[in-house]
Amino acid sequence: MNGAQSLLAAMIRNGIDVCFANPGTSELHFVAALDHADGMRCVLGLFEGVLTGAADGYARMAGRPASTLMHLGPGLANGLSNLHNAMRAQSPVVNVIGDHATYHRHYDTPLTSDIEGTARPFSHWVRTSPNADSLATDAAAAIAAARTAPGRIATLILPADASWGPLTAEPAAAEAVVPEAPQAAGTAVDAAARVLRSGETTALILGPQATREIPLERAGQIADFTGARLYAPTHTGRITRGAGRVPVQRVPYPIGRAAAAFDDVQNIILVGAKPPVAFFAYPGRPSQLYRPGTRVHELARADQDVPGALTALCDALGAGRATPKRAGLSLPGRPAGALTPAKIGAVLAASLPEQAIVVDESITTGRSFLADTECSRPHDWILGTGGSIGYALPCATGAAIACPGRKVVVLESDGSGMYMPQALWTQAREQLDILTIVFANRTYQILREEMSNLGVTARGPKAKALTDIGGPRIDWVSLARAFGAEAFRAATADELSRHIDAGLALQGPVVIEAAL
Amino acid sequence: MNGAQSLLAAMIRNGIDVCFANPGTSELHFVAALDHADGMRCVLGLFEGVLTGAADGYARMAGRPASTLMHLGPGLANGLSNLHNAMRAQSPVVNVIGDHATYHRHYDTPLTSDIEGTARPFSHWVRTSPNADSLATDAAAAIAAARTAPGRIATLILPADASWGPLTAEPAAAEAVVPEAPQAAGTAVDAAARVLRSGETTALILGPQATREIPLERAGQIADFTGARLYAPTHTGRITRGAGRVPVQRVPYPIGRAAAAFDDVQNIILVGAKPPVAFFAYPGRPSQLYRPGTRVHELARADQDVPGALTALCDALGAGRATPKRAGLSLPGRPAGALTPAKIGAVLAASLPEQAIVVDESITTGRSFLADTECSRPHDWILGTGGSIGYALPCATGAAIACPGRKVVVLESDGSGMYMPQALWTQAREQLDILTIVFANRTYQILREEMSNLGVTARGPKAKALTDIGGPRIDWVSLARAFGAEAFRAATADELSRHIDAGLALQGPVVIEAAL
Repeated sequence: MNGAQSLLAAMIRNGIDVCFANPGTSELHFVAALDHADGMRCVLGLFEGVLTGAADGYARMAGRPASTLMHLGPGLANGLSNLHNAMRAQSPVVNVIGDHATYHRHYDTPLTSDIEGTARPFSHWVRTSPNADSLATDAAAAIAAARTAPGRIATLILPADASWGPLTAEPAAAEAVVPEAPQAAGTAVDAAARVLRSGETTALILGPQATREIPLERAGQIADFTGARLYAPTHTGRITRGAGRVPVQRVPYPIGRAAAAFDDVQNIILVGAKPPVAFFAYPGRPSQLYRPGTRVHELARADQDVPGALTALCDALGAGRATPKRAGLSLPGRPAGALTPAKIGAVLAASLPEQAIVVDESITTGRSFLADTECSRPHDWILGTGGSIGYALPCATGAAIACPGRKVVVLESDGSGMYMPQALWTQAREQLDILTIVFANRTYQILREEMSNLGVTARGPKAKALTDIGGPRIDWVSLARAFGAEAFRAATADELSRHIDAGLALQGPVVIEAAL
Repeated sequence: MNGAQSLLAAMIRNGIDVCFANPGTSELHFVAALDHADGMRCVLGLFEGVLTGAADGYARMAGRPASTLMHLGPGLANGLSNLHNAMRAQSPVVNVIGDHATYHRHYDTPLTSDIEGTARPFSHWVRTSPNADSLATDAAAAIAAARTAPGRIATLILPADASWGPLTAEPAAAEAVVPEAPQAAGTAVDAAARVLRSGETTALILGPQATREIPLERAGQIADFTGARLYAPTHTGRITRGAGRVPVQRVPYPIGRAAAAFDDVQNIILVGAKPPVAFFAYPGRPSQLYRPGTRVHELARADQDVPGALTALCDALGAGRATPKRAGLSLPGRPAGALTPAKIGAVLAASLPEQAIVVDESITTGRSFLADTECSRPHDWILGTGGSIGYALPCATGAAIACPGRKVVVLESDGSGMYMPQALWTQAREQLDILTIVFANRTYQILREEMSNLGVTARGPKAKALTDIGGPRIDWVSLARAFGAEAFRAATADELSRHIDAGLALQGPVVIEAAL
């Protein structure tokens, strides 16, 4: 048995069964070992951001880590931006990064780089295995780190000679020992209960561990019992929602609208979330979205047992028998005519299938989509978490692999979709049921809006050119077909409706260019 | 005047006249300032690796830095892999990375990350400007750092409030003070001369500063006078070559062939290069490519005046009147029939136009292309330097911008080309004369070869699948057209020949899929 085989066995024993891979020479013993290991599905990506984004999407839906396999510092570098999103989504991910043989590094050959230094800003845990014998234990430690609440990024660096080297002893049957998430402090629960009983206006900010069905039920009971309002941060990893689920409002992205939402709020209770703060700073505007004087209380930190804290709070309030307000099923009629955000929202609301997974990177086009779909068939909604755009196509890839049998619907903007379109190829290769709608407005529209928000009023030709992506016009139908996906173009709401139905009926990936 | 305007003025005054940009909200004051600054060409890329690769290509051809503009840690992260290549090419690059306003950072909002930590493994110089007043001086320092021999990566982090903040005083007319490259030591020159006079077999390894026309002439005189052999490292930034130029052999990538080349060599003289070492380690094989006992001498370090060292050596030998062996013009006939590497090489050799810039990422298909084109019309040949694949389309973009009027020919493999195909869009937008030939063999062929080299003989279905990129088949013609480039498909050598001629006659980018 060599190091790579021992590593793989330890990964599989500790519950890793998917590897999103883009191997190079240093990883080939790991690749060869895959054929001796049952229970590890390998998914090839043609660019590393596809792998890390897929691992993020997998973790958001499966609730446990997948692994990635990447090639030295530059391979890891290509995957970092989606690791940033995964960190912010609290997604557990286990990266395996091949490196040169230990004795080869000091020659400083072309591919040599500081892999640990590259990994560190985007990982909670980084280790380089020194040799074959250490790999089983290191794999278990990496997996334990990744699965430590609320979900972390672990990066294990695999020198080629550790990979190909023979074990000198039987490998340890290393178990990943995952610490239990600590309970929220009783004093925090009591304090929150006092606030909620006070009669003051109170908002609960529900972090990503609190926007799943069960904790949302508890939050809904609290809201029903006390009149508190429920919010999810603007950039939240996953919200379980639609008919039958407790609705939660998203903190609006535009700071004026966000500040208005909190204008009358006297107390904010954080439930594994941070206080609401503007995504960017704007000259002369405060970063905090709530008024000075608003009292901020923390029920639970993100690394504590967040659902348990909601249950404890519900109990402390005696709200356990309250009936939360749940969304009813209400599907709008299907509009026709010119494509507008409102009509797109209605088409989506009407057509989302039961248990759909929506991956939303629709940016400016999609500001109303969450509200529009509140009473759609039950579904999960995934949002960008770290502000690194281009995450949606990779994330959808991983979500589809985590949830076979569920349809994934990607709401993509044409600017964002251009960062990692290679994900479409993996979707076609794996025949994943992913329907992507690209809202093609041919601009970085958010930058045009932000320019006004920043107080930049004079816009010359260069500023205009740098926010214009319409020349040349990107042909999303050709692009999708080049990668092996089916594709349509929709110029009206009825065409969009028809293509969505047709796309959902097909197997494998489908792209619809919605020409705005 | 605000900080962004002061920064831009300092960049332009110090010779930066191109900015490869993918801005976000934090960079919008910089974007707005562009319209008040004459002398800065802005080139939009849809993915950050396109920007850094273009800056690398620009530097390799122009010999001076361009700037990039990227958006916080994740934007920079997407650009790192091509910065790695640029570092290894000794290309000067000035990165400007937008950050949150200084007072906003501590809120740890979704896009917050450790930008300095992200930059450091891929930069020689990193600085965060604290305020508007410091930007002119910091820009000059960044440019001086980038232009310090042999060419470095400088990363300047631009907080949004430094960008939008008003200057409190007239900006310093900051000048980039670039230190002169130090001369090689006289003792090193004398020692090299003694070796070359000894009659022992000697190879000169010419680093990237030595493979341009003038230093190659000196090296050629030394070779003629002493019988020394001339080599360029396998991964060298740029070789000026073809008819009329002194030919230099590339150290072969396969270690067996490389070791054979150095088998009889008693002395190696390094001319701004490192000793020849295998790109990867292989079990049981030495990393060094030369025999134990071979004496290695260093004429000049890469950060010294490498061309000057060759002139000094030439003088010390009294070789100044020697006539170097130059390649003669010899164009092969154009073959027909099935596409083979040998026929492709002949087609290239016959069709490369005068002063072409060849960007070579042809990997396994192109092993003979350098030899094939030694006697083609005079041209420059650019190679991958850092082993981070996908560099060629971005690098060609920058090379074309540096050299209007010259044709750029990209020799691309279908695996590598999939990392950053978005570069084609920028090529179309800027109407750059870049002809890309994609050698579509539908596999990561190099990995299949490396598996044998590593001693992995049993190849199961997973290993086979992870090196197969033929399912689905990527349609390069559709892909190129989706990005606004013209495209053809060639299945035979005569079709390839015809499409190359047609492509070179067009303006703007053209892609030819050579179906192997």
